[in-house]
Amino acid sequence: MGLNTFGHLFRVTTFGESHGPAIGCVVDGCPPGIAIAPEDFAHDLARRATGRTRHTSARHEADAIEILSGVYEGRTTGTPIALLVRNTDARSKDYDRIAQQFRPGHADYTYWQKFGTRDPRGGGRSSARETTMRVAAAVIAKKWLAERYGVRVRGHLAQIGDVLPRAHDWRNPDWSAVEANPFFWPDAAQVPELETFMDALRKSGDSVGARVAVLADGVPPGWGEPVYGKLDAELAAAMMSINAVKGVEIGDGFASVAAKGSEHRDAMTPNGFESNHAGGILGGISSGQQVVCSVAFKPTSSLRLPVDGIDVEGHAVEIVTTGRHDPCVGIRATPICEAMLALVLMDHALRHRAQCGDVGDVAPRIPA
Amino acid sequence: MGLNTFGHLFRVTTFGESHGPAIGCVVDGCPPGIAIAPEDFAHDLARRATGRTRHTSARHEADAIEILSGVYEGRTTGTPIALLVRNTDARSKDYDRIAQQFRPGHADYTYWQKFGTRDPRGGGRSSARETTMRVAAAVIAKKWLAERYGVRVRGHLAQIGDVLPRAHDWRNPDWSAVEANPFFWPDAAQVPELETFMDALRKSGDSVGARVAVLADGVPPGWGEPVYGKLDAELAAAMMSINAVKGVEIGDGFASVAAKGSEHRDAMTPNGFESNHAGGILGGISSGQQVVCSVAFKPTSSLRLPVDGIDVEGHAVEIVTTGRHDPCVGIRATPICEAMLALVLMDHALRHRAQCGDVGDVAPRIPA
Amino acid sequence: MGLNTFGHLFRVTTFGESHGPAIGCVVDGCPPGIAIAPEDFAHDLARRATGRTRHTSARHEADAIEILSGVYEGRTTGTPIALLVRNTDARSKDYDRIAQQFRPGHADYTYWQKFGTRDPRGGGRSSARETTMRVAAAVIAKKWLAERYGVRVRGHLAQIGDVLPRAHDWRNPDWSAVEANPFFWPDAAQVPELETFMDALRKSGDSVGARVAVLADGVPPGWGEPVYGKLDAELAAAMMSINAVKGVEIGDGFASVAAKGSEHRDAMTPNGFESNHAGGILGGISSGQQVVCSVAFKPTSSLRLPVDGIDVEGHAVEIVTTGRHDPCVGIRATPICEAMLALVLMDHALRHRAQCGDVGDVAPRIPA
Amino acid sequence: MGLNTFGHLFRVTTFGESHGPAIGCVVDGCPPGIAIAPEDFAHDLARRATGRTRHTSARHEADAIEILSGVYEGRTTGTPIALLVRNTDARSKDYDRIAQQFRPGHADYTYWQKFGTRDPRGGGRSSARETTMRVAAAVIAKKWLAERYGVRVRGHLAQIGDVLPRAHDWRNPDWSAVEANPFFWPDAAQVPELETFMDALRKSGDSVGARVAVLADGVPPGWGEPVYGKLDAELAAAMMSINAVKGVEIGDGFASVAAKGSEHRDAMTPNGFESNHAGGILGGISSGQQVVCSVAFKPTSSLRLPVDGIDVEGHAVEIVTTGRHDPCVGIRATPICEAMLALVLMDHALRHRAQCGDVGDVAPRIPA
Repeated sequence: MGLNTFGHLFRVTTFGESHGPAIGCVVDGCPPGIAIAPEDFAHDLARRATGRTRHTSARHEADAIEILSGVYEGRTTGTPIALLVRNTDARSKDYDRIAQQFRPGHADYTYWQKFGTRDPRGGGRSSARETTMRVAAAVIAKKWLAERYGVRVRGHLAQIGDVLPRAHDWRNPDWSAVEANPFFWPDAAQVPELETFMDALRKSGDSVGARVAVLADGVPPGWGEPVYGKLDAELAAAMMSINAVKGVEIGDGFASVAAKGSEHRDAMTPNGFESNHAGGILGGISSGQQVVCSVAFKPTSSLRLPVDGIDVEGHAVEIVTTGRHDPCVGIRATPICEAMLALVLMDHALRHRAQCGDVGDVAPRIPA
Repeated sequence: MGLNTFGHLFRVTTFGESHGPAIGCVVDGCPPGIAIAPEDFAHDLARRATGRTRHTSARHEADAIEILSGVYEGRTTGTPIALLVRNTDARSKDYDRIAQQFRPGHADYTYWQKFGTRDPRGGGRSSARETTMRVAAAVIAKKWLAERYGVRVRGHLAQIGDVLPRAHDWRNPDWSAVEANPFFWPDAAQVPELETFMDALRKSGDSVGARVAVLADGVPPGWGEPVYGKLDAELAAAMMSINAVKGVEIGDGFASVAAKGSEHRDAMTPNGFESNHAGGILGGISSGQQVVCSVAFKPTSSLRLPVDGIDVEGHAVEIVTTGRHDPCVGIRATPICEAMLALVLMDHALRHRAQCGDVGDVAPRIPA
Repeated sequence: MGLNTFGHLFRVTTFGESHGPAIGCVVDGCPPGIAIAPEDFAHDLARRATGRTRHTSARHEADAIEILSGVYEGRTTGTPIALLVRNTDARSKDYDRIAQQFRPGHADYTYWQKFGTRDPRGGGRSSARETTMRVAAAVIAKKWLAERYGVRVRGHLAQIGDVLPRAHDWRNPDWSAVEANPFFWPDAAQVPELETFMDALRKSGDSVGARVAVLADGVPPGWGEPVYGKLDAELAAAMMSINAVKGVEIGDGFASVAAKGSEHRDAMTPNGFESNHAGGILGGISSGQQVVCSVAFKPTSSLRLPVDGIDVEGHAVEIVTTGRHDPCVGIRATPICEAMLALVLMDHALRHRAQCGDVGDVAPRIPA
Repeated sequence: MGLNTFGHLFRVTTFGESHGPAIGCVVDGCPPGIAIAPEDFAHDLARRATGRTRHTSARHEADAIEILSGVYEGRTTGTPIALLVRNTDARSKDYDRIAQQFRPGHADYTYWQKFGTRDPRGGGRSSARETTMRVAAAVIAKKWLAERYGVRVRGHLAQIGDVLPRAHDWRNPDWSAVEANPFFWPDAAQVPELETFMDALRKSGDSVGARVAVLADGVPPGWGEPVYGKLDAELAAAMMSINAVKGVEIGDGFASVAAKGSEHRDAMTPNGFESNHAGGILGGISSGQQVVCSVAFKPTSSLRLPVDGIDVEGHAVEIVTTGRHDPCVGIRATPICEAMLALVLMDHALRHRAQCGDVGDVAPRIPA
């Protein structure tokens, strides 16, 4: 945990800079016997990738995964799985000037303060390109969770700037609509309006934030740990570790502040829970209900609109970003949030069976 | 990390059940030479304690800290510091009936599903009584952070139910007001109104949520880690690990969703940053600005108003909670949020000097 | 792991100084449902304790375990188990002079160099008194390993100074003899000779080293991890973490250096292995054979024979240790080595079922 | 720690199978600013490599390191350093038959029992090929330790089979001799004899064990941690994690068993220690003396001499290993032991400055 490793037992270590030769990850602690092939990664990587529509950055990476280890005859062996993607469309010359300046809203200044150095090419390690490997690692997790426990992890865009879906239960969206447009937007009828909104935004040179909803169905009760390893605590860290995230909610989130306890607590009957204000987690442990998480993304700071900044010698400069960027980073963040939710669940599935045996071994049979 | 331990290098392991013989913690990895005496804990423990006003639970614990180890001649030695508090006002008979029932909104059901058993007395391990030891451990962290780096960690209540402070800059409150009322409320003139609000709430048998703001001034630039050990990611986990928390924001938080990039990015001049929408953290690393965190607490689920529930055999029961409880857990949460912020900063101070040397050793001198 | 915590999933954190108010531990990650009572600890703690015979230090501690948390109605709940022992026979005045001096062969000098301070009373944290809590924690591990998997962990003294057992298969000793004498010596007939040896040693004011053999029967195949989490690697760390240990061997150990591969490799037949030079571990993973470990203890450095030393100001002093000490620390180390073996196996049992499911779930049925 | 990661703060995660497409590692937590180029790895990798003399396996790998990340303009940036080596001389057909059999003395059977599967090509993950990446990662550690603290880590072969160096102080060998022969042998005059010995051994089809001595000079006092993070405990784990290791000693090791305390304890004078039986570590913390470690390697089990074994269905088979193997794995192990010693020291250097500040910050000035 910490540094560049995520997870206690299902451990994902990522590496690579945005414009370096390659990015990659090592997935350690993976159960043996999972069928995995390079083509399994294509779907989610394409969902995350830039350059597929005019609404995301123009950078186009093939994102071809090479499996370097840990898979034999098409199945995981229990040894570390290394995945590698070569960077092919890195235009570092775009960043020559930026190397001497600190872009406001970026990690340029803080990396410099921490390390006394930084790789300025495309943001180096602080680029969202790193999230490619989170999505790749989560493909393995999603597969195992689905096959073994029937867990399904899905996300959608719940707000973009000040635009909200119209008719829409955000915890039970029209999933076919979500996957049919480049915005992961749950309201199909609204897509043309969104395209107009995004076109105007791109033209203005500005950017907006977004809210992503990510949901897990089929999570068995009992995953999570008391106190510091709470399922929701680790979800919060997982989401907040994604570039540009500024807020995380579980269940009703900040709406709980103004709620009454008599409304908020989720009554139980022999047929199950009557509501899910808690978002599927009680005392840090899954309740068997849908796990509900909502994530706030700030607007991209990389704009062609000029801004006051300083250079590495502390002098005032006007900064204009000319590289390729997303006018709304939240759009592509949907599969990344899904990935982090899957990684957290995977890790907790393993942690639970370590301490308590597998689902069903220890827990009494109570209606979920 | 995980389970009942918080922190990578400054590691706090807590133990104890609400109505067991004692609660305690072990603080490991602490720098040597910090002056610590039992009386140093009194102030913050009293701020967190119940039974001091009619607005919190009537349980009255002395919370007398015994230092069992790790301190010699009044100073830390670098070996583990064990702190112990005996439970004295545990009325477990209040919970006899509850032992056979799952209280909605509590961890009763999920602990049972996970472990096949639970200690029902006062909520056992899932009780907020555990947070006593977080506050105690953070007393050491606060002291070292203040003495060595001039860091100051403070919090206040920013919303209770639907009541907001009137004239009030929540990032720069009137701290003397905050400490002068039992609500940690930054607007002194509003306190009588709040007392009326709380009295009515208590009388109704219901509860409300709250929002706590927690701020750190004086944090040097460079603390935090890229990617999974981001300062904000670990803050999110720290806050979400507190009982009843449902949301965490850094800086502008969810307000970033509707913001434009041209407004949100914090411009820099040779004299420093022009704003702090980011909340003092860029790319997971502190920028030298105020660290700003906002935390949502749900309303207590323990009410004397009846609710549908089930018992351990899955039968329908009506549940009424007669134990002593807070009508708004968020009130006492202010020192707990401060504690978690201090623990995260302390851990990152040590992690930073491990990799990069101490503040000032590696980083170039740039206006902060 | 590291600092004062042992184990990844079954985590034991110990605290306390030799002459401080108490020692204790927190056992986190323990499976729920294990029957544990204070009296379960008595047997192994008595085996480890001083003051029971004239051959060990005269310090007499009751070692009465108080269970502070994690056990409800006689069974573990899955929450942290805190165990506490008050120190009662701490004669710190014995150490007044030593506080200003560095005892050769002790940690006095190195703690001072590391921390700039130390608790000199009875060696503070570096005293073997800390091992009381290892033995206590391992009582829980031994119980679960025995009940769930039929694992049996036992040890004996295999050499003391230059005295070796006479007729004796050290991997298959006469266990009834081992437990019938204060030396854990496997050759009953030799005990009077040993007593004479020890009496003469004590009289001379000198000390000797010892070799402890520790064995686990019934370990299922498959526990351990490739590469850095190898079962033998963690056993080596576990043993070397015990005070005064200078060497660890698995299976044939250093005798393997002069062996031929054609003799050393353990042939297999459909009825199982033909020998066990490897000591029950291949490639870091248990083979289903007896796990065999041998541990070298140095002679105690605390002697009433004077030795050259320095004081805290760097001046030459003659050092004489007058406190109560063991003439052979290796004797009491037998239950400590057992404890560490049990803790390593327990941790790996949980780690194995995390990644691969429980024993028998994944592994094919091959003759063990 | 554990699984395929070594180190707490300077973390090395290795991946790759012997005959898979590549092996590699990710070095995380590395201090920024260290000058590193691909050619820096060549010297130590060549020392470890097979195929350079007739006395090691005939497999010839170029071991060309590609730096994939974490280095910018020739210096480390503080982000993860990924190193990759493509496997080029993997002759997997040599192993076709072995895929259905468990080679005695190998990890074939235990991997199968653990994971229910294994990659049989060249031993897969259990091959010593993995150690290439330990040596590579340690090149970075050695460089920083030397530049910053003047630490020097070196090893040599101290015994091969029953052959011992003649005139030879094993803690202070003739280092120029060590590097001038393919055996890392400290006695130049004895090399022809060793060559004859090895030629005869190879011809016989058998193998022998070896003992490697590994020494660190210039380690400052104060590195290491009390109790479970002891410097010697982690050294023991580090060495035991190397393929074929069966024993580890610190300082006098097993010779301490028969020693008297009056001889073994290392007296101190104002000019320093009078001896170093302890091997440079007291109470788990470095004393400023030479760190002394001795490691036992078993003889290779892969022989062309037939042995009884079983196949994956449990039937008896006669096993003959025809692949390319070392008649004495201990020979090439010298740089691997050096690597593990360097990695442990590097990790502890960072851990020490995290808790106590950098060397000299906290510790009093006492003659070392």
